[in-house]
Amino acid sequence: MEHTIEFRVRYEETDQMGVVYYANYLTWFEVARTEFFRDQGVDYRKLEEKDNIYLPAINASCKYMAPLRYDDIAVVTVKLANVGASRISFEYTVKKEEKVTTTGMTEHVFVNAKGVPIKIPAKVKKAFS
Amino acid sequence: MEHTIEFRVRYEETDQMGVVYYANYLTWFEVARTEFFRDQGVDYRKLEEKDNIYLPAINASCKYMAPLRYDDIAVVTVKLANVGASRISFEYTVKKEEKVTTTGMTEHVFVNAKGVPIKIPAKVKKAFS
Amino acid sequence: MEHTIEFRVRYEETDQMGVVYYANYLTWFEVARTEFFRDQGVDYRKLEEKDNIYLPAINASCKYMAPLRYDDIAVVTVKLANVGASRISFEYTVKKEEKVTTTGMTEHVFVNAKGVPIKIPAKVKKAFS
Amino acid sequence: MEHTIEFRVRYEETDQMGVVYYANYLTWFEVARTEFFRDQGVDYRKLEEKDNIYLPAINASCKYMAPLRYDDIAVVTVKLANVGASRISFEYTVKKEEKVTTTGMTEHVFVNAKGVPIKIPAKVKKAFS
Repeated sequence: MEHTIEFRVRYEETDQMGVVYYANYLTWFEVARTEFFRDQGVDYRKLEEKDNIYLPAINASCKYMAPLRYDDIAVVTVKLANVGASRISFEYTVKKEEKVTTTGMTEHVFVNAKGVPIKIPAKVKKAFS
Repeated sequence: MEHTIEFRVRYEETDQMGVVYYANYLTWFEVARTEFFRDQGVDYRKLEEKDNIYLPAINASCKYMAPLRYDDIAVVTVKLANVGASRISFEYTVKKEEKVTTTGMTEHVFVNAKGVPIKIPAKVKKAFS
Repeated sequence: MEHTIEFRVRYEETDQMGVVYYANYLTWFEVARTEFFRDQGVDYRKLEEKDNIYLPAINASCKYMAPLRYDDIAVVTVKLANVGASRISFEYTVKKEEKVTTTGMTEHVFVNAKGVPIKIPAKVKKAFS
Repeated sequence: MEHTIEFRVRYEETDQMGVVYYANYLTWFEVARTEFFRDQGVDYRKLEEKDNIYLPAINASCKYMAPLRYDDIAVVTVKLANVGASRISFEYTVKKEEKVTTTGMTEHVFVNAKGVPIKIPAKVKKAFS
């Protein structure tokens, strides 16, 4: 259960080292997650808007093996790693021309509008199993 | 009626040209505005939290004369330019070692939680006159 | 002579007002410019890498009429506005579902590796005329 | 061997959840590192400019226990964790009003202008031991 997105690296995402600034990979992971959810039939935006359910990150990590540069085509794949009672985790790879340059993971917890952890909504659990 | 802030340029704010990416100046203007408000006795955070009043930008512009670089000390001055019925505008200068490198302006409108323009709150009007 | 790109608004691009933060539109303009150049047969990346020619912004402005939100499909159109001896300017519109929400302009100057203004390279001038 | 910086959370750093977007903590870690280096007598900017030595991240992780919000005073402490032959690692804590909200680590490798790992420069090794 995974999903892949492709996009061009933005100039804004580079730093003076001439490569993508290290924090931006976490943003790319977020973009990939949104599309993964949509691909599984879950509209994350509506989860927030209609159900007042949010999915903040509680852990994130990234391993940088090779840099990406401006105008490179980044290929980001997100894979469902684990589904718990109220937590969910994902693994990521970033590729440039078939070569893995970066890997990462994020863990999230479903919370209500007050930030209190809740059980994973049934429709999400179903979509992800 | 003006206020000046100073801070170091972050590595993240540079791009591969080795200078501060052009959009980041608008972020600096925002940081200067917050401190300007505080300096005038207006807590912008509370304006949102307690009064549900927001101040989105409706216009912004920036003129770039010289670049700033990583670790430079940026000196950003914000000056109240105009106070209307529901709108307010500011002018900015960014200096590096006494030299003006960038100027800009932003215009904002006071709105309620539904995004509808409202009269400038009395306490803000008073503080800014 | 114009070019249009489409993409989803990233969660990262929103702020606590629930809308896209105002500086991010300048980043979107940059993404549109890159694709406009490519569409006209000019590879901006190579201009920097091979020819050591750079195109920093010297002016930018933005008019915000309506907000965009997370997961909205942003439609950004860039149009060549003016080509001078060493300067070039562009106009932009951002649409959401056919409605113009934002307009803007940027002006740039061609410079060499030392930051000195140069004449617009012949191949760029040709492509843009 | 540690260093602490304090600053206000920027509006730009929030997202529509009303809290600091998770990737921004890595930027804060970078700001803390720069000041840690300066505090130890190492000017990281000059390391790049004069010596053509760079310090890209090869690993980064972050654990989010509680959110920070706009205008909060973030207190970020960086601590030297390990100094190897060509690698160096740091640990971080982010506090809000004495309470630890976020922890993290980053690992970096010293490289030359071609991106090839090099031994930690003597002056850096000395400063950090």
